[in-house]
Amino acid sequence: MDKAQQKISILGAGLVGSLLSISLAKRGYNVTIFERRPDMRKAGAIGGRSINLALSHRGLKALENVGLKDKIQESCIPMPGRMIHDVEGNLDFQPYGKEGEFINSVSRGGLNWLLMNEAEANGVQIMFEHKCIDVDFNTATSVFDNGNTAEADFLFGGDGAFSALRNAMQKTDRFNFSQEYISAGYKELTMPATANGDYAIDPSALHIWPRGEYMLIALPNLDKSFTCTLFFPFEGKTSFESIRTEADVEVFFHEKFKDAVPHLPNLKKEFLENPTSSLITVRCDPWVKGKTALIGDSAHAIVPFYGQGMNSGFEDCHVFDQLLEKHGKINDDLLKEYQALRIPDGNAIADLALYNFIEMRDKVADEKFVLQKKIEKKLNQLYPEKWIPLYSMVTFSDLRYSEAIARGNKQQAIMDDVLSRPAIEKDWKNLDFEAIIDEVHQ
Amino acid sequence: MDKAQQKISILGAGLVGSLLSISLAKRGYNVTIFERRPDMRKAGAIGGRSINLALSHRGLKALENVGLKDKIQESCIPMPGRMIHDVEGNLDFQPYGKEGEFINSVSRGGLNWLLMNEAEANGVQIMFEHKCIDVDFNTATSVFDNGNTAEADFLFGGDGAFSALRNAMQKTDRFNFSQEYISAGYKELTMPATANGDYAIDPSALHIWPRGEYMLIALPNLDKSFTCTLFFPFEGKTSFESIRTEADVEVFFHEKFKDAVPHLPNLKKEFLENPTSSLITVRCDPWVKGKTALIGDSAHAIVPFYGQGMNSGFEDCHVFDQLLEKHGKINDDLLKEYQALRIPDGNAIADLALYNFIEMRDKVADEKFVLQKKIEKKLNQLYPEKWIPLYSMVTFSDLRYSEAIARGNKQQAIMDDVLSRPAIEKDWKNLDFEAIIDEVHQ
Repeated sequence: MDKAQQKISILGAGLVGSLLSISLAKRGYNVTIFERRPDMRKAGAIGGRSINLALSHRGLKALENVGLKDKIQESCIPMPGRMIHDVEGNLDFQPYGKEGEFINSVSRGGLNWLLMNEAEANGVQIMFEHKCIDVDFNTATSVFDNGNTAEADFLFGGDGAFSALRNAMQKTDRFNFSQEYISAGYKELTMPATANGDYAIDPSALHIWPRGEYMLIALPNLDKSFTCTLFFPFEGKTSFESIRTEADVEVFFHEKFKDAVPHLPNLKKEFLENPTSSLITVRCDPWVKGKTALIGDSAHAIVPFYGQGMNSGFEDCHVFDQLLEKHGKINDDLLKEYQALRIPDGNAIADLALYNFIEMRDKVADEKFVLQKKIEKKLNQLYPEKWIPLYSMVTFSDLRYSEAIARGNKQQAIMDDVLSRPAIEKDWKNLDFEAIIDEVHQ
Repeated sequence: MDKAQQKISILGAGLVGSLLSISLAKRGYNVTIFERRPDMRKAGAIGGRSINLALSHRGLKALENVGLKDKIQESCIPMPGRMIHDVEGNLDFQPYGKEGEFINSVSRGGLNWLLMNEAEANGVQIMFEHKCIDVDFNTATSVFDNGNTAEADFLFGGDGAFSALRNAMQKTDRFNFSQEYISAGYKELTMPATANGDYAIDPSALHIWPRGEYMLIALPNLDKSFTCTLFFPFEGKTSFESIRTEADVEVFFHEKFKDAVPHLPNLKKEFLENPTSSLITVRCDPWVKGKTALIGDSAHAIVPFYGQGMNSGFEDCHVFDQLLEKHGKINDDLLKEYQALRIPDGNAIADLALYNFIEMRDKVADEKFVLQKKIEKKLNQLYPEKWIPLYSMVTFSDLRYSEAIARGNKQQAIMDDVLSRPAIEKDWKNLDFEAIIDEVHQ
């Protein structure tokens, strides 16, 4: 069959569904997206206060693959490092990578808007207010709550952590699935631009107030505001459950986030009224059933602490497009290869993201952690191919996540040993760096 | 409120739902069971070929608690050990425990029938052909596919591995859940009574043909037949996928289960026509939401290799009844204590059951395993309280599963060390048993 005649259905007009639709449309497929919500673009302009995300190498490479990298980088705010705020308000800037390496703060709404426009410009039809309620795996047919039915040659579930396609798969035999929530949730707070229209704090960093069991972070928006997010236990002594009144909020924030408070004029109201959201990790296997496949969060929803949710979903689209290049058309072999490649990587980034919560909320404030970063930076300068810090492998390379985690574990074992040496704080510059590199490649 | 006025709904008239209904009815509650299937008792007598299960100490204790132990033991066939069949047909009988300790082969259908009769005799109403499609957690209201609705004070989901109550819970925020299938499935085969009406093989054992990656087992039925179950990989070189014709079946069984073949007259037909079923492990947390709670397989479906699926579900009922004795009535505190006690035990028996597949299909044929059993038997004779083999803790005691797994791990580490000693095969009787016991209690 001529692939131009092949019909593709995609569930979800979010970031991943929209990007997938663009790459398939560019290859000549007849693509329709079914989105359960109304068209967000009709509700008016997406302001700077929409949630922002960290777009990095993998996501940008996937956007470059469909010719959208430059356009999207125009609305990105580069963040070359973390700015750590201690309890006294002292600042410590920690670069994420080498000179010239940075992650990007980007508006989820703005990016989604642009991707939907690009999808339509490439001939993709987006059907809004179509909530999928049933799926036939073998005929790639989707059934919607408004009574409509759509037949297709292949159906993709880009419909997020609570995917309708995955729910249908879960009812079939031998579908492995897990959903695990962490004990912390999150709440967004707004740090508006100052009276004279400037950023309240330095916009060229991702700000972190690490406090052990919890943390506050802030990412800059184009309108000079920041979106702050408090990651905080649901229950316990210091938790969403325990902080219930305006007085509680005031006391807690003054004690723990003193330097942020002057920049949070609506803190008390927002803390008490904004929703508290939970954080889920979803894993499943298989991702493919019949003529249907999961992609993005529907296959591997992860916690946000590595900034890789969107990036890993975009990379799914990129890998899929490379497989399409290789196989010539979508078929069962391609779908099998897609899941065989991406399931281990989805599991790896899920693990990394869970681990990075501990790193962000706790370890970044630790002297050993800072020392390790210094030693790893030196190793990377001396042996740029042989030692790449884990954060850089994940964020600034497109090494498979599963490979990054394996190399990262090996490097960490070596660093744990190095950091346990006596007087390492003083003597680290005299380390035998070549011997360390030899250990990695044993 | 007088507890006699409290209304209880139970989803599922299976083994656990029926037993729970009896213990609640005996305490004066007004209990209704809603079962999605028609009444199995109206379909005619339950024959010997219905699946049989291994009823052991925990299950019997729970039955004793409602006065049914003696009645049910009448239809039990005691199995004091495993009979191992090697490829040549040689037999090796391995006792499960001490003299007088045995597990019981019992018909699932027959036991269920009896429990439903007992439930009704105790005033429980069973509504058949009521498939639950929705639940209100806070009002314990269940909605059924036939349009009926039932209000209650508390609702229990005894509705098995694919529980409707759990499915409803899974859609709520912060519900942790996993379903994992193993790569093997199973198929039942019939070993009828001989022409002169006897058992074809020794009925006082659970028969195992351990073959490394797979195994055949057989449990006796009251009608002198055995129900055999082949646990076998779905895919791979030797698997359900690879054995497809009558000739394949014949060659394979003659090569691997030679001594069983003469007793399996319908082997080829049954192998090709009987269903192949999958094996799931379900874990979740919480088990309680509002006025509803999961019990049995709905909370902790496990693979069958420890013979503890029914026993653990019956123990849930027993523990619940003990908590009811303690709290005086069902309330939020009781439900909280129930899940706090039973979730770790559900996870422990799930792990033990997965591990025991390896033991049954592989290790029981191993000399070291047999030697370990001998040494452990000796230790248990000398120090009956201080060293109880793991199998005995699980099967012949009511020690918490989570405690059994902890003690079992400790004992296994000691045994691994003992078994690695040179010439242990010859010298084991000269071991310093007191020193071994001291290690356990360090």
